[in-house]
Amino acid sequence: MAKEGADMTEETEFMIDTTVGKEAENVEPSSGGVKEMRAVVLAGFGGLNKLRVSRKTMPEPQEGEVKIRVKACGLNFLDLMVRQGTIDNPPKPPLVPGFECSGIVESVGENTKGFEIGDRVMAFVNYNAWAEVVCTPVDFVYMMPDEMSFSEAAAFSLNFVAAYMMLFEVANLREGMSVLVHSAGGGVGQAVAQLCSTVPNVTVFGIASCFKHAAIKDSVTHLFDRNVDYVQEVKKISPEGVDILLDCLCGENTGKGLSLLKPLGNYILYGASNMVTGETKSFFSFAKSWWQVEKVNPIKLYEENKVIAGFSLLNLLFKQGRCSLVRSVMDKLLCLYDQKKIKPVVDSLWALEEVKEAMQRIHDRGNIGKLILDVEKCPTPLMASDSTETSEAGEEEEEPEGDNDSKERMPFIH
Amino acid sequence: MAKEGADMTEETEFMIDTTVGKEAENVEPSSGGVKEMRAVVLAGFGGLNKLRVSRKTMPEPQEGEVKIRVKACGLNFLDLMVRQGTIDNPPKPPLVPGFECSGIVESVGENTKGFEIGDRVMAFVNYNAWAEVVCTPVDFVYMMPDEMSFSEAAAFSLNFVAAYMMLFEVANLREGMSVLVHSAGGGVGQAVAQLCSTVPNVTVFGIASCFKHAAIKDSVTHLFDRNVDYVQEVKKISPEGVDILLDCLCGENTGKGLSLLKPLGNYILYGASNMVTGETKSFFSFAKSWWQVEKVNPIKLYEENKVIAGFSLLNLLFKQGRCSLVRSVMDKLLCLYDQKKIKPVVDSLWALEEVKEAMQRIHDRGNIGKLILDVEKCPTPLMASDSTETSEAGEEEEEPEGDNDSKERMPFIH
Repeated sequence: MAKEGADMTEETEFMIDTTVGKEAENVEPSSGGVKEMRAVVLAGFGGLNKLRVSRKTMPEPQEGEVKIRVKACGLNFLDLMVRQGTIDNPPKPPLVPGFECSGIVESVGENTKGFEIGDRVMAFVNYNAWAEVVCTPVDFVYMMPDEMSFSEAAAFSLNFVAAYMMLFEVANLREGMSVLVHSAGGGVGQAVAQLCSTVPNVTVFGIASCFKHAAIKDSVTHLFDRNVDYVQEVKKISPEGVDILLDCLCGENTGKGLSLLKPLGNYILYGASNMVTGETKSFFSFAKSWWQVEKVNPIKLYEENKVIAGFSLLNLLFKQGRCSLVRSVMDKLLCLYDQKKIKPVVDSLWALEEVKEAMQRIHDRGNIGKLILDVEKCPTPLMASDSTETSEAGEEEEEPEGDNDSKERMPFIH
Repeated sequence: MAKEGADMTEETEFMIDTTVGKEAENVEPSSGGVKEMRAVVLAGFGGLNKLRVSRKTMPEPQEGEVKIRVKACGLNFLDLMVRQGTIDNPPKPPLVPGFECSGIVESVGENTKGFEIGDRVMAFVNYNAWAEVVCTPVDFVYMMPDEMSFSEAAAFSLNFVAAYMMLFEVANLREGMSVLVHSAGGGVGQAVAQLCSTVPNVTVFGIASCFKHAAIKDSVTHLFDRNVDYVQEVKKISPEGVDILLDCLCGENTGKGLSLLKPLGNYILYGASNMVTGETKSFFSFAKSWWQVEKVNPIKLYEENKVIAGFSLLNLLFKQGRCSLVRSVMDKLLCLYDQKKIKPVVDSLWALEEVKEAMQRIHDRGNIGKLILDVEKCPTPLMASDSTETSEAGEEEEEPEGDNDSKERMPFIH
């Protein structure tokens, strides 16, 4: 990974009303020939107030790396876990969050083949994506189809690769099967629904908040409100249960999920969103969640003919070195995209400076599809009706007034 | 299931030296027109001494059932667990053990389509297979290929269906993958090895007792003795581990198996042979084993990208109603058999009256491939060198002399 020169970071707290124009421009060399860039910096683990847009030294590509002028970044539930420090072995803050982006190749390191300056690319990054420029190993970079926009590309990689690998690599989705997905309205949920539609006669049960139902009802076969007992509801339609259950641990327990599986069914845990809380004691919440997750007796799996799997795409890429497998999956996904069988759903675009509001939206599960940080976007001006209502997404301290406007500012809907 | 008329059972303790000729003949109506048959009866849970060959009322097929004149039965490790009562919810003894057989259709019940009198068939049975005649629902009966012998057929169904479903339904075995199988010399192990050879470039790691290595070394890629630390040995060859690990819980713990999996790897538990002990307190041994099985935290699976599955073919068939799926698997297997890509390995044939010796052999893991009860076989006469050495497979009481000859009587090797 490129050195980010963290100790040279100059924190420049962003003031929306005065600096929009200046901040939105590319940052050129300031003093002494050192190039700088804007980036979202997490100063320490905790609430939204730990996030700032700051100037940082621009990275340069090392051997085998590609330097990307970032156009758009994906915002995922996992980023909220990073912010709260509730992931396994997080790096030490200050850090720049963000695991995926799209943009244009600005340069390549030594011995770096496969990409040229000017190429439109999408990439996985092991942190540091939420910046104007990022460097990442060539193994994690993919060419974008010509007809794909940058925001689509930033919405594509993580969600579709994860959905595809869970359905087709971990489980073995085939004709006539049934799939239940929690958070059907989210980025992964929408990717799952689209990929299921590429296989004949697959029944998709989706769970989502009521207010999303109108928008996503055509993407799934059956839709349930997250407040109903989904086990009962699914069993009314399919008494035997489902073949594949995708769970980001939205406050449910594994036993409940396992009980809904057909024999030979797969329960796949692909996240742990119940570890993001609105409370201040995030570490203790995390520890509590960890220990409260119901452990599974393998002999019970034997008697019931059931499968339980965990899936973490980022660990697969960055800890377990499965980049060639992921590239083969990306190739298949880009074929499906070319055939217009799949298309990422973008919920909204946000300026880097609006990252807190974007996080609040994903925390409140307000999104339908993916939230994108659009690096070139100017923050939406405050509206007259804006209140100073307190944010609930893990705030630890009082924020200055005018920075708590998440509920009232309308995002730009793509 | 057909009524077996358990209360009419007449225990006729078998005396090898005097009754062989008579017992081997088909039993015709004795008195009052009631047809009888020979069957292995388990009088109660416990050691080998609980098994007897007895006369029982012959079952007649109910609606939807096929009546089979049994030629050969499969003997599986599971039958030892049944004998000790260490399976989940065993039926109440006295009972006739046995889950699979081959033979000739003798009649069919009302509304039973697909089979005719005289058809050569193999079948799954929910107990009662170890008898001269058995009735089982038509859903569990399959036509035998013309060139397949009855002993091959009795060795085929359970082992190959289980091996196929684990490799291709639960896991997703594909070109270039690696598989580790415990008990590589057993019936399932040999089926796994053969099925792996139908996929290009699959590496099979087998574990078996040293004395079997010469016989089975050509069936697997790498063979380890069961006394070595297989985790270390596999990692010397494949530092990343294996893609699929098939474990019948041969005294190992699940954590050890999981640690040997590659990311996205499958750990499949398909039995619990460590629950069969030589001790008398079988229930307590069972309970101890159950609780000692290491439970799995789903979040660990998430972080490590691993899959743990349980597979019980009998539960799938008899409790979970997956007979049509199993039939489709059987169709594929019979294609592979016709193409001479797979062939069941028969270890030895035993008369019904030799069931104790056969059980002792599987308990001692002396077998290479499948043990078959050949219903028409006469017990092998005692040899001059026969001793009265005490059996070790779960004996609770002293047996009469002359019935403890398992170590000295040579089985008929097919």
